[in-house]
Amino acid sequence: MDLNVTSANADLALDADLRLELWQKLSTEIERYLRLLPGDPVSQPLDAAGTAALRAQIGTIDLDHPIAPAEALQFAVTGLWEHQVHTPHPRYFGLFNPAPTTMGVAADALVAAFNPQIAAWSHSPFAAEIEAYVLRAVAAKFGYPAASSDGVFTSGGAEANHTALLCALSHAFPEFSRGGARALPRPPAIYVSNHSHHSIVKAARLCGLGTGAVHVLDVDDAMHLQPATVAAAIARDRAAGFQPLLLVATLGTTGTGAVDAIGPLADLAAREKIWLHADAAWGGLAALVPELRPVIAGVERADSITFDAHKSLSVPMGAGMFLTRHADILERAFRVDENYMPRDASGLATAGIDPFAHSMQWSRRFIGLKLFLSLAVAGWEGYAAVLRHQLAMAALLRQAAPGAGFRIVNDTPLPLVCLAPDRPDGDTPAVIDPIVRAAVASGQVWVSAAALPARDGKPRAAIRCCITNYRTQAGDIAALLECLTQFSVISDQ
Amino acid sequence: MDLNVTSANADLALDADLRLELWQKLSTEIERYLRLLPGDPVSQPLDAAGTAALRAQIGTIDLDHPIAPAEALQFAVTGLWEHQVHTPHPRYFGLFNPAPTTMGVAADALVAAFNPQIAAWSHSPFAAEIEAYVLRAVAAKFGYPAASSDGVFTSGGAEANHTALLCALSHAFPEFSRGGARALPRPPAIYVSNHSHHSIVKAARLCGLGTGAVHVLDVDDAMHLQPATVAAAIARDRAAGFQPLLLVATLGTTGTGAVDAIGPLADLAAREKIWLHADAAWGGLAALVPELRPVIAGVERADSITFDAHKSLSVPMGAGMFLTRHADILERAFRVDENYMPRDASGLATAGIDPFAHSMQWSRRFIGLKLFLSLAVAGWEGYAAVLRHQLAMAALLRQAAPGAGFRIVNDTPLPLVCLAPDRPDGDTPAVIDPIVRAAVASGQVWVSAAALPARDGKPRAAIRCCITNYRTQAGDIAALLECLTQFSVISDQ
Repeated sequence: MDLNVTSANADLALDADLRLELWQKLSTEIERYLRLLPGDPVSQPLDAAGTAALRAQIGTIDLDHPIAPAEALQFAVTGLWEHQVHTPHPRYFGLFNPAPTTMGVAADALVAAFNPQIAAWSHSPFAAEIEAYVLRAVAAKFGYPAASSDGVFTSGGAEANHTALLCALSHAFPEFSRGGARALPRPPAIYVSNHSHHSIVKAARLCGLGTGAVHVLDVDDAMHLQPATVAAAIARDRAAGFQPLLLVATLGTTGTGAVDAIGPLADLAAREKIWLHADAAWGGLAALVPELRPVIAGVERADSITFDAHKSLSVPMGAGMFLTRHADILERAFRVDENYMPRDASGLATAGIDPFAHSMQWSRRFIGLKLFLSLAVAGWEGYAAVLRHQLAMAALLRQAAPGAGFRIVNDTPLPLVCLAPDRPDGDTPAVIDPIVRAAVASGQVWVSAAALPARDGKPRAAIRCCITNYRTQAGDIAALLECLTQFSVISDQ
Repeated sequence: MDLNVTSANADLALDADLRLELWQKLSTEIERYLRLLPGDPVSQPLDAAGTAALRAQIGTIDLDHPIAPAEALQFAVTGLWEHQVHTPHPRYFGLFNPAPTTMGVAADALVAAFNPQIAAWSHSPFAAEIEAYVLRAVAAKFGYPAASSDGVFTSGGAEANHTALLCALSHAFPEFSRGGARALPRPPAIYVSNHSHHSIVKAARLCGLGTGAVHVLDVDDAMHLQPATVAAAIARDRAAGFQPLLLVATLGTTGTGAVDAIGPLADLAAREKIWLHADAAWGGLAALVPELRPVIAGVERADSITFDAHKSLSVPMGAGMFLTRHADILERAFRVDENYMPRDASGLATAGIDPFAHSMQWSRRFIGLKLFLSLAVAGWEGYAAVLRHQLAMAALLRQAAPGAGFRIVNDTPLPLVCLAPDRPDGDTPAVIDPIVRAAVASGQVWVSAAALPARDGKPRAAIRCCITNYRTQAGDIAALLECLTQFSVISDQ
C-alpha cells in the first residue's frame, strides 16, 4: 500500500516553488491585461477557419500528457485574450458585463483557496453572515425594511427571476410544494411585457407551468408596460378561469433600458392580490444614485426584486441577488430536510439560516465576498461616483450623436443609448444590422442591435450602446461615434 | 459634466501600486493558509457568544466609510480562517469538499479577471470550446461515445440532478415545455432510494411535479436499491394511473458511500422505458481509476449522469457536471429564443452551441477552466494517483479500526468509512452522536453522523469518515482513530 502523498501533492497542490511562480505569473498576466487591453481590439472576427484553429489549439492539450503549470496558465491567458469578446474593454458597449473590480478578482481567488462549503450555516458562519450582511444592506437601498427583508445570492439574474416565480407559487399555493402544478385549482398566469427578459419564460417552463402560462403583453410606444394593459389581461384571464399569479415589472429592459413605472403596477398588483416582481437586474443601479432613485419609486412595494452585482456593481460573474420583503418565503419555497446536513448549529438559537434552505442550489460558492470586498473598499459613495460617471458618458453620447448624423430612439434615464441614422429608413433592420456587424467585425467597438416595437407591422431596430464599464471615457464615446459614422456611411452607399 | 474617470478607477480598479500590494498579499495569505492549516483546528466550536462576536465584527465594516484594499483583504482572510469548517484541512473527513487544486484557484482568479460572458458561444468561443472539450473527455471516461454525448457545467450537483429531471420530462413529454405539468396525461412518478440525495426531492418540487411525485424506495440491508423493489413499485404505480418517468441510481450515497448496481437497474429502465439517471456526484470517481471501474459497470447505459468536479476532482466550488448520451435533449429542454442574444455566430456553420441554450442558467461564470487547467497539469494519471491514495487511506482506516475498538458498518469500494464502537449498542444514535459532537468540538478532526437503515424499527447511526482530501496522510488517519477512541471512551463512562 503506497501511503506516500508526495506525488498527489505535486500534481494538485504543486510544490511551493511552482506555486510561487504561478502566483507571480498570474498577477503579471492580469496586470498586462488591464494595461494593454484598451489598445487591443474589443473582439476578433469569427469565421470557420478561426473556429477550426481554436479547436485544433485546444486539442493540443492531451490530458494523458500533463504540461507544466506556467505553460497551462499561459495557454488559458492566450486563449481568453484571443478568443472572447472583451467585456472588460472600455469600448465594449454591450450586454451589462462590466469590467470587474480588482477586489472582486481577489475575492474570487480567496474563495477558491479557502473553499468554504456554503450549504449549512454551521460549516461557514463567516460566509453565511457576510452574505446576509450585504443582502440586507442592498435591500435597504431598495427601501426594504432591514428587519423583515430576506434574500439570497444566485448564479445570476436568471436564477433570481426563477426564484421569484417559485416564491410567488409557494406564496399563492401552499399545495404547490407537494402536489406540483397539477394540484393547483386553476392554471396560473404570469404577466410580462414583450420587452422583459426571456429568463422569465424559461423559468415558467422549468417550474412546470409551461411557457403557455406566460402572458406576454405589449408595451406602449415609449416601451413601458401600462397598468391598463395588465388590468385588461387580468380581467380577461379571470373570466377564462386562470388564476393571475405574478406580474413582472422590468426596471431597465435589456434592449432599450426602458423602466416600467412601478408605482402604478404596485397599485394594480395589490388590488389584484398578485405577486409583483421587479426585474431590476441592471436598472437597479438607480437605487444607488440618490438623484436617480425617483425613477424606480415604489420598488419597495414589490414583493421581490432581482438585482445583479455582476451587472451593476462590476463584480466578476456571476453574482445575482434575489431580494424579498417576505421574510419567510424563501424558507417555505426551498427547505428540504436532510439528515446528513450538519446539525451542530441547530441547537444554537442565534445561528443564521442555512443557505441551502433559501436557494435552488445546495452546496455552492461563497458568492457574496466579491461584492462585500468591493463595497468595503469603494463604499456606497464610490459606487455612486462610478454610476454617475456612466450616466455622464451616456449623456455625452446622446449630446454628440445628432452632430454625427444619428438620432436617439429610446427613452431611458439609464446609461443605455439606442441610435439610428437620422434618415427615414434609419431604424429598419436593413440599415441597422450591417452597421452593427461591421462595427463589431472591425474590433473597434462592440455594440448590438436592439429590436424596437414594430410600427405599422414593420420590424424596427436600433444600434444599442450601453455604458456598462467604469473604464469607459469620453475618448471612447468619441471613438464609438466615429466608428458608427464610418460604417453608417458605408452601409449607405 | 464630470468626465474624469480617475476616482472611479481608483475605487474599483485600484491604482497599480495598490493592485501590486494586493496580489502579493493574496498569494502570501494563500501560501500561509496552505502551510499553517494542518497545524490548526479543523473547526472552531460554535456558540451564541461566538456568533454575536462574528456579527459585531462584520458590523464594523461600514459601507459608507471605505477601508484600504489590504485591510479589506485581511478582514476576509481572518474571517474565513476563524469562522469556517476548514474543508481543505487534511483532517476534514467530511462532506465531499476536498482541498482545492492550485491550478483551480489560479483558474478562478483568471476567470474573474477576464470575466468572459458565457451565455452566447460567440461572446466567448474559448470558454465554450474548453467546456465542451472537458465535458467530452469526462463523458468518455464514463463510457459515453464522444460523438453523441452532450453535457453542461452546473453550479453543483443539485443543479445537475435538477437538469436530469427536466431532461427526463422533456424527453417523455414534448408537451411539458409549453403546457407544463398540468398538460401531462398522467401524473409522472420518480423513483429514488431512501439513501439518495435530497436534491432530487427539491428538484421535483421546483419543477412543478411536487414532492409527492417522488416515490422513495427502501434499500436492502447493504443499502443498495434493488431492481425488484423498483419493478414492484412501477407495476403498482402503472396500475394506479401514474406514468413512471425517472429512476435514479445513486453511485455513492452521501451517507455511507453505497453504490447501486447500475447494470440491473439499466435493464429494468430499458424494459420500462423510463429515464435512468446516475447520480455519481462523488462516486463517479470510480470512472477514473481503472481497477475501480467495474463498480459502476453499466453506467454508460444511463441516460444521464451527475458528476461533480468540486467533489471528486478537487477543484474549488462549484463545478458540477451533467452528462447525457442524448445529444439533443439539453437543447430541447432549455433553448428559449431571444432577439438580443448575439447572433454574429449564427451564420457560422461550425459555431459551437450557445451555453445558455443548454443550461438552467443564462449568463454564467466560465466554470470549466478550473477543471481544464487542473487536468492539463495533473493529467488523468495524476488524478488516478490521487484517488488511489484516497482509497489507500480508507483501506488503512478500515484495517486499523478494529484494533481501536471500532467495527466497520458500511460496505463500499469508495473511500468512505462508517464506524461504530464495537459493542452491542455501538450503532445507536445515543452512542454515536456524543462521539461525533465531541470530536468536532475538539477541532482535531471533522466527522459526521450517518444514518443507517433502521433495524427492528430502531434508528441506527455511525461515525462517517470520508477521505475526500488529497492532503490526508497516514498520520491523519491515526489521529482520527485516536480522537474517536478518546471520545468513545468518554461517552462510555
